[in-house]
Amino acid sequence: MKRIGVVLSGCGVFDGSEIQEVILTLLAIEQAGAEAVCFAPDIEQVTVINHINGEAQTDVRRVLVEAARLTRGNITSLADADANTLDALIIPGGFGAVHHLSDFAQQRENCSVNEQLHRLFQEIHKQCKPIGLMCIAPVLVPKLVASEDPVRITIGNDPDTIEIVEDMGAEHVICPVDDIVVDEAQRIVTTPAWMVATRISDAARGIDKLVRRVVEMTL
Amino acid sequence: MKRIGVVLSGCGVFDGSEIQEVILTLLAIEQAGAEAVCFAPDIEQVTVINHINGEAQTDVRRVLVEAARLTRGNITSLADADANTLDALIIPGGFGAVHHLSDFAQQRENCSVNEQLHRLFQEIHKQCKPIGLMCIAPVLVPKLVASEDPVRITIGNDPDTIEIVEDMGAEHVICPVDDIVVDEAQRIVTTPAWMVATRISDAARGIDKLVRRVVEMTL
Repeated sequence: MKRIGVVLSGCGVFDGSEIQEVILTLLAIEQAGAEAVCFAPDIEQVTVINHINGEAQTDVRRVLVEAARLTRGNITSLADADANTLDALIIPGGFGAVHHLSDFAQQRENCSVNEQLHRLFQEIHKQCKPIGLMCIAPVLVPKLVASEDPVRITIGNDPDTIEIVEDMGAEHVICPVDDIVVDEAQRIVTTPAWMVATRISDAARGIDKLVRRVVEMTL
Repeated sequence: MKRIGVVLSGCGVFDGSEIQEVILTLLAIEQAGAEAVCFAPDIEQVTVINHINGEAQTDVRRVLVEAARLTRGNITSLADADANTLDALIIPGGFGAVHHLSDFAQQRENCSVNEQLHRLFQEIHKQCKPIGLMCIAPVLVPKLVASEDPVRITIGNDPDTIEIVEDMGAEHVICPVDDIVVDEAQRIVTTPAWMVATRISDAARGIDKLVRRVVEMTL
């Protein structure tokens, strides 16, 4: 059975992984006949957001501990992820991707990516295994893929974010919520999910398509 | 469009709503052509559990604020729920159902149900609108439905829990993860979900079936 690494960044769209994207990803991986293996960095959250009023809270939470809520405790520190035991990687969205997997939220085009994710991503990529990213997570791609040709990705249709990822060296493709963008050469698959979605069932169509393609592309 | 009230109890299987059950419910409601309207009690959590090691944490969280993570902030206090504006009610599982929607975790057969949920449930039930409950949540039914005939429910196949709900006056039916138990007279639909499931895709089959039946039973 193919093992698909899923990298989480907390639990909740405004300070972690987008919950609906994660659960739809885990469901789609099983339905594609593969197995999800979940990871998150064992670090303190940069921010904790009250999801009703959007205000920052003062309590301290850890990314790995909160992400464990999504997987009923079945999760491993990203530090222990081994590319050799995985057939592909998927990174759901949510603000955790730009707060905890990178500092894109503060640094934009000058951002850096979490060191453990950087290592894992590069190893998976070097082994020509497919990598899927959704929602805001594709902004990390130009920092992670060093290629002569710009890597083709989508973050949906948001003009400001498109400008930044193009400045970072990516080729951006406008994409509807129920579709995916595939860079066959780089083996990178992206879908806008909740960057564009207005309903969970719309996000599900794009996520299903991304997961099925990533599983098909495994070696 | 039919409006299905969904009552949440926090965010995470061990101290709130079971996340996978909630997201699968929201997806199934949309796919059945209905609209989910989410509520949670605006109360302090009885407990906060570290989902990696199962230990109690010392921080204080509120049920409504944490439940808002599941719905991207789109949630209302249970105090403001109006049965007249809803066509059905669904209550997902997770330990929040027995910590925050009731005190079943401590009091077992002598438990009482959150007053706001009690009121909403009784009004929906009196209006002959269908009610679906999954996982551990069906243990609340005998406290909420006063009928001469025992109400037929399932919590899966756990002998200890079955004994308690039978002591409370329910008729328990053993049920596999991909099926539902329907009490047509009382208009109560139940499915075991993660009381029995070992995979998210198995839980999804029972939850889909429950949601479709509840939506079909709306007036």
